[in-house]
Amino acid sequence: MAKQKNIGISVKKEDDLPEWYEQVCLKSELVEFSTVKGCMVIKPRGYDIWDSIQNYFNKNIIEKTGCKNAYFPLFVPESFFKKESKHAEGFNPEVAWIDKEVTKEGERLAIRPTSETIIYDSYSRWIQSYRDLPLKINQWCNVVRWETQQTKLFIRSREFLWQEGHCVYETKEECNNETLQYIKLYEKLCKELLAIPVLVGIKTEKEKFAGAEYTSTIEGIMPDGKALQMGTSHNLGQKFAKAFNINFLGKDEKLQIPWQNSWGLSTRLIGGVVMTHSDNKGLVLPPKLAKNKLVIIPILFDDTKEEVLKKANEIKQELDMFNPILDDHDGHSPGWKYSEWELKGIPLRIEIGPKDLEKEHVVIVKRNTGEKQFVKFEDIKKQVSILLTEIHNELYDKAKNNLKEKIVTVDTWDEFVKEIKNKKVVRCAWCGDTECELLIKDKTNGVTSRCEPFNYDKKEIENKFCPHCGKEAKQIMYFSKSY
Amino acid sequence: MAKQKNIGISVKKEDDLPEWYEQVCLKSELVEFSTVKGCMVIKPRGYDIWDSIQNYFNKNIIEKTGCKNAYFPLFVPESFFKKESKHAEGFNPEVAWIDKEVTKEGERLAIRPTSETIIYDSYSRWIQSYRDLPLKINQWCNVVRWETQQTKLFIRSREFLWQEGHCVYETKEECNNETLQYIKLYEKLCKELLAIPVLVGIKTEKEKFAGAEYTSTIEGIMPDGKALQMGTSHNLGQKFAKAFNINFLGKDEKLQIPWQNSWGLSTRLIGGVVMTHSDNKGLVLPPKLAKNKLVIIPILFDDTKEEVLKKANEIKQELDMFNPILDDHDGHSPGWKYSEWELKGIPLRIEIGPKDLEKEHVVIVKRNTGEKQFVKFEDIKKQVSILLTEIHNELYDKAKNNLKEKIVTVDTWDEFVKEIKNKKVVRCAWCGDTECELLIKDKTNGVTSRCEPFNYDKKEIENKFCPHCGKEAKQIMYFSKSY
Repeated sequence: MAKQKNIGISVKKEDDLPEWYEQVCLKSELVEFSTVKGCMVIKPRGYDIWDSIQNYFNKNIIEKTGCKNAYFPLFVPESFFKKESKHAEGFNPEVAWIDKEVTKEGERLAIRPTSETIIYDSYSRWIQSYRDLPLKINQWCNVVRWETQQTKLFIRSREFLWQEGHCVYETKEECNNETLQYIKLYEKLCKELLAIPVLVGIKTEKEKFAGAEYTSTIEGIMPDGKALQMGTSHNLGQKFAKAFNINFLGKDEKLQIPWQNSWGLSTRLIGGVVMTHSDNKGLVLPPKLAKNKLVIIPILFDDTKEEVLKKANEIKQELDMFNPILDDHDGHSPGWKYSEWELKGIPLRIEIGPKDLEKEHVVIVKRNTGEKQFVKFEDIKKQVSILLTEIHNELYDKAKNNLKEKIVTVDTWDEFVKEIKNKKVVRCAWCGDTECELLIKDKTNGVTSRCEPFNYDKKEIENKFCPHCGKEAKQIMYFSKSY
Repeated sequence: MAKQKNIGISVKKEDDLPEWYEQVCLKSELVEFSTVKGCMVIKPRGYDIWDSIQNYFNKNIIEKTGCKNAYFPLFVPESFFKKESKHAEGFNPEVAWIDKEVTKEGERLAIRPTSETIIYDSYSRWIQSYRDLPLKINQWCNVVRWETQQTKLFIRSREFLWQEGHCVYETKEECNNETLQYIKLYEKLCKELLAIPVLVGIKTEKEKFAGAEYTSTIEGIMPDGKALQMGTSHNLGQKFAKAFNINFLGKDEKLQIPWQNSWGLSTRLIGGVVMTHSDNKGLVLPPKLAKNKLVIIPILFDDTKEEVLKKANEIKQELDMFNPILDDHDGHSPGWKYSEWELKGIPLRIEIGPKDLEKEHVVIVKRNTGEKQFVKFEDIKKQVSILLTEIHNELYDKAKNNLKEKIVTVDTWDEFVKEIKNKKVVRCAWCGDTECELLIKDKTNGVTSRCEPFNYDKKEIENKFCPHCGKEAKQIMYFSKSY
């Protein structure tokens, strides 16, 4: 009964999102704060989600695009960083350095905050001829950024897990196409696996990756109207190739400089999933992310216990492909168990008691809606499949509606300010000036540009003016607060 | 043609094992030295092997023993290390520390050389009651040990990848049984996946893990008679539980201290595989480790090219489950291609030319023996399966014979010294004294105890005396040089 104290989320999502979010993460046992400041411990339930993401990614992105997984060192010599000056400048404040007395090499070593420089040092040896291109490598690893802002589970911590893809191409065009291909594959992953719709587009000069030509991004919009950057794909042009002396003998037998991109997503996605789908009962997981897709809870009375358990076990066997949990422990009531597994985000619950046995059916309950239905014994397997797909689609559609509702198009500065206060994402025609961007951030307590969407109708900016500075509009831009 | 210069191993395994080993690792493109001193880059072909090991491990060890994967921080506060004094003492010389000016916490942070302390800090919060036990967690991660000895690809580097399992039990007996269960599962992995036979047993007091009650080990014996420690499972007793305040309310409603073990294996295994099985043509891989189990090489002439390629493609389709490579590139002769794929360790080669087409067969060549056979079109798939199993068994049997041939039982110090000079592993009845062990190491230029085997006949030590110090024998011990 000691456990009962801990169970249940004590604040409402709509009342206090940050506190609610932390409680869901902790109480559904995905993650905890480590004693080591700024770090998290990803517990087995959280790691299962990361495992699902990795499996999807390896199958649908790495293999399909002809990438290979590899592993590069954790340590980056300070001199490598400095080879691409803007890159060094952008990352410098966040780098954790190893003591010189340890390295004994006269130079400090960074713990990788990202691996462009250490990987491209290898590439300069690997790439000799056009026959070596395209070179497409991905790495799954931990990275460290010495954040000074408050730790937010999955969303901001000093160490996190991610994948980073690093490709090299013969031509500018191929590089550009593939940079955008990867961001579109990220968007697809969000839709198909996480059930999260995202804004997709290009970052401003100010917000792009340090050292990139441009950065494309996917941005989830959380319930508080803040954006969560969920993945980026950077077109690096020839900047790093020049800095790291990567060149190749072209088909024309002349020495050429190749084109590069890099792209990454991280355990931050798990935070996005929790915040987007979960509710006041706890975690809601899109079924494809859930390791255990259902829990079977037998309703036990002394005189019928044996038959009910027998049938529950049969059902468990039959549903083996969904990795079911059978919660037949004594000592807790069915109601207590319902709450427990709702808190932990199991997508479907199957209830079976003596009356159900008589009627040859079970009750199936959907975690996301609480909707109940009676399902005949012979239809269970088929119906579970149908319901899991249904849950995925419902979660996606709900999130999609929320996203639509969050985005407001504005023309004037008054509207801009008002809608941000209303926790909206603002969409407007904009001048595109970095100076204007900085002023907007200052005046709004931290609103930043999110991205210029792909493929909008250029008529939208005709004869329009920047709502902030009044200059001629050059592009459509999303603005919002962000994580 | 530029590539041709690099191809082929230029020294023989029997003449210069270290140079041969390095060339096989580098030229088969498994790994390279990083510019960062002491670190390696695991290239895609090397990472594929690690991936096979991880997949086997997750399926056959983690899932089967009820473990869960999780992830703990890279950083370990210095104060955690010091809580278990022998542990701190054992690891201190090898630890890479983060600058205090980075941590700003008044204490240094270690980059994990192993994770007992950081994990058990979490366990002290997770474990409250006997209901929380056994707790069985595994972590896949990178670890760092600031080695000052020369880097040896896969075998010794400052950073490597590994898994570390950390379990907590209610009783001493359960802990002991499971500690030994894990080392036996490691032995099985070596046999079933790596085709490597190992010595299994218990380390001496001197050689055990810093902070453990005892360490069990698997030791591969390399062609030069040096042992390679390939995995260890440590019984930690209650030492760490006491140091980290891990306790639980027992079934008797009293506060109790639990029992713990930890066990790990690393990318070092890949080095063991290369050294054990490969030959003067290059890499030989046990089929279960090979991502591409076969390569199809069509013999192309202008007038029959089209038919031969058509059939080669059909065969590729049919053998899809073996992830075949079809090497139909122009510009290299079949002979050149044979050497290339032999170097890279593809287990089977299928040759098909116009004459084979007429006779409706292919030639299949085994990488390990060079043995050729004609196989009728309709039998290819079945025969490939048979041959892959055959290769695995042949590699294992050959390694097993080598192991037997390497082990020599001795009674006297003269024999001991002579057999070590003959590059043998010495098996003898031994006194068990640490002082004697240290002297043996001194006098033999580095020979160390490897392990006391499980389950030998105690009669073997009756009336026997230590070949070195002449004291009464207490146990059987293996001695050898080691990596």
